[in-house]
Amino acid sequence: MTRPLSVAVAGLGTVGAGVLRLLRDNADVVTARAGRPIAVTAVSARDRTRDRGVELAGLRWYDDPVALAADPAVDVVVELIGGSEGPGRALVQAALAAGKPVVTANKALLAVHGAELAAAAERAGVPLAFEAAVAGGIPVIKALREGLSGNRISRVAGILNGTCNYILTVMRERGREFADVLAEAQKLGYAEADPAFDIDGIDAAHKLAILAALAFGRPVAFGAVHVEGIRRISALDIAFAGELGYRIKLLGIARCTEAGIEARVHPCMVPQAAPIARVDGVFNAVVAEGDFIGRVMLEGRGAGAGPTASAVAADLIDIARGRSTPVWGAASGALSDAPSVPIEAHVGAYYLRLMVVDRPGVIADVTAVLRDQGISLESMLQRGRSPGEAVPVVLVTHETGEAAMRAALARIGALDAVLEDPAVIRIEPA
Amino acid sequence: MTRPLSVAVAGLGTVGAGVLRLLRDNADVVTARAGRPIAVTAVSARDRTRDRGVELAGLRWYDDPVALAADPAVDVVVELIGGSEGPGRALVQAALAAGKPVVTANKALLAVHGAELAAAAERAGVPLAFEAAVAGGIPVIKALREGLSGNRISRVAGILNGTCNYILTVMRERGREFADVLAEAQKLGYAEADPAFDIDGIDAAHKLAILAALAFGRPVAFGAVHVEGIRRISALDIAFAGELGYRIKLLGIARCTEAGIEARVHPCMVPQAAPIARVDGVFNAVVAEGDFIGRVMLEGRGAGAGPTASAVAADLIDIARGRSTPVWGAASGALSDAPSVPIEAHVGAYYLRLMVVDRPGVIADVTAVLRDQGISLESMLQRGRSPGEAVPVVLVTHETGEAAMRAALARIGALDAVLEDPAVIRIEPA
Repeated sequence: MTRPLSVAVAGLGTVGAGVLRLLRDNADVVTARAGRPIAVTAVSARDRTRDRGVELAGLRWYDDPVALAADPAVDVVVELIGGSEGPGRALVQAALAAGKPVVTANKALLAVHGAELAAAAERAGVPLAFEAAVAGGIPVIKALREGLSGNRISRVAGILNGTCNYILTVMRERGREFADVLAEAQKLGYAEADPAFDIDGIDAAHKLAILAALAFGRPVAFGAVHVEGIRRISALDIAFAGELGYRIKLLGIARCTEAGIEARVHPCMVPQAAPIARVDGVFNAVVAEGDFIGRVMLEGRGAGAGPTASAVAADLIDIARGRSTPVWGAASGALSDAPSVPIEAHVGAYYLRLMVVDRPGVIADVTAVLRDQGISLESMLQRGRSPGEAVPVVLVTHETGEAAMRAALARIGALDAVLEDPAVIRIEPA
Repeated sequence: MTRPLSVAVAGLGTVGAGVLRLLRDNADVVTARAGRPIAVTAVSARDRTRDRGVELAGLRWYDDPVALAADPAVDVVVELIGGSEGPGRALVQAALAAGKPVVTANKALLAVHGAELAAAAERAGVPLAFEAAVAGGIPVIKALREGLSGNRISRVAGILNGTCNYILTVMRERGREFADVLAEAQKLGYAEADPAFDIDGIDAAHKLAILAALAFGRPVAFGAVHVEGIRRISALDIAFAGELGYRIKLLGIARCTEAGIEARVHPCMVPQAAPIARVDGVFNAVVAEGDFIGRVMLEGRGAGAGPTASAVAADLIDIARGRSTPVWGAASGALSDAPSVPIEAHVGAYYLRLMVVDRPGVIADVTAVLRDQGISLESMLQRGRSPGEAVPVVLVTHETGEAAMRAALARIGALDAVLEDPAVIRIEPA
């Protein structure tokens, strides 16, 4: 038996404690699969006194996480601090500079500084592994970077944020409004006290930026991801979606088109029969489409101590076995330089829901605006009749350009008879 | 740039031609991800003259596939001949003995001779890769062997044969009988002229044996897999399944229990709401359950030239990058010696459909037999009334042992009023 792989863990929140627990409880399995024991020997966290439910006696404790990189008895550094800046970033930089492999769950760091870190890992000739950064324990990084590596990937799409998917699922199942379900999710621990990061789509955008870089073999480009969250989704639109044969999901979607790479996170209407439409609650799912493999979907728990620890352990076992892959799937010199395409160039079908005064001529005004922008309608839905009162009108368009749609929306929103900002949701094919 | 990886391909059917096409069409992507070009330099197939739609000029041609192993200019051998015996097996043995890495799509070979081949690969210190052997391009081997490697896996289950899933899907959607749909599937090329291998569950059993070995880290044990096919599934039972909230799928299921490893392939009733119940047509899916990750599902195309070539290419890229994993996930000395559990020890719920003469007392006789065997009923369904004629009666049991069920079936089948062999389908939880 080779000597144990000596691991330092920075950050002992639920995920860090989960990693320690996995390596202890499953030591036999891990040792067999890694070909040698994997032992945590050093840790760093803010509070030495907190009970984390795992034994820390005998481990070297560092108050400064960056100091872990300099410990000569540490083979691999696991960074679970999080955040694109600050000590997490400093630790990863220091560990790579010291020639030590790094395992991290830090999606923000990879999305924002991934190019620089990939260069550092390449210079040092050590792996920078991050299976835990996207979709929890579901091995999507490995699937894209290794499992589908023979394919030209044309599209990758996913439910990447469990909090949003949980909220949308409960809104649909119980016909409740966003604010109400969010408050409940916060009580249940499914949403953070400050939920903006999740519900405004930032977390999903970090993950999508990572998936897009891997799928298309290009440098990560978080700044080019178009991001919209789920705050404006209403119970009414979810009900209409159901009537039209759709479900509303917050998706991250990246496509490789002739013009370049399109990457966007926003609420979508997806056909009810699409496999991804059935992924409910806190579950995540990622769909990839390749020229030889066709469509593949992976689905499972996207967060939590157990799944995230599972992903960290898989990365550690890879390192123990000497398996490694360039950060973005290819050496930095071999990455594609395909440009990013802005959301304004997006072409697709749109769902539009207006609240209008129920009086003659309103629909004619609205449809005239759409006609003037060259937008054709697939269907229209009007519920109820209350002359002189506000009623919802739903319009579904054929394929149209985002720019034309935005111009039309500005004019429609300015019509007297239109009482609120139109609700607009892009329709995504299965 | 390192020198190209030189590959020999044995077997130029649709999959072999697909591998050549992938390596040619996606050479840029493959080279970037492999860190070096991957070039097919030698081939072997039966017919030199057949047009396979791919350029073979300039390749060294061998009539005897085993000779590929001895070609000093070949770095890796790809075996696409198939079959657990014969030239495919001889080639893999010869290549490993010559110290050459092997990539194969041959599930029968791995299932039947996997232990011996793993030992040969271990002795030679070279990889034996077989992503293409299970579920086509879906990276399930990689997911189990590497992606979930930190977990104690308790259960792996899957739709592993596209032909069976296609037939069952069409039977359900159109209310048609097995023989009829099989004949059509043969015409469409979804089923072989001799369909036994698929519809009798052998192909799925080969794949399940492989998955079970990987999931539980034990030597492959094809002989211990209990196998039943789909010939006896009727349109009537599919209709009753729908009424009861189930779908009928041919599943391969392996479980790690206190008594040992249970592995079985048979038609199952699965709850309609289970993700695997929704996987229709020629698609495959594999569900794995681990102690840290929870439940993960992978779904995609399980066969065909494109998906299989995708899996072979992924294995070749792993080899080009120097990534390897022991055949069964751990060195042979570190594998588990958990015993196999026979199907007679199975415990679960059962669906029973009898054709009985519609007359007083029949149900009392049947339920008395069940009571005598200690089998309790969850529900009973009787459709239509035709005194003196044959009518179907459906019984769903609570959890019961296979042995008790078999004893009850023997006695029920012998009752005068029971007109055919009872239809029995095991119910599998989601």
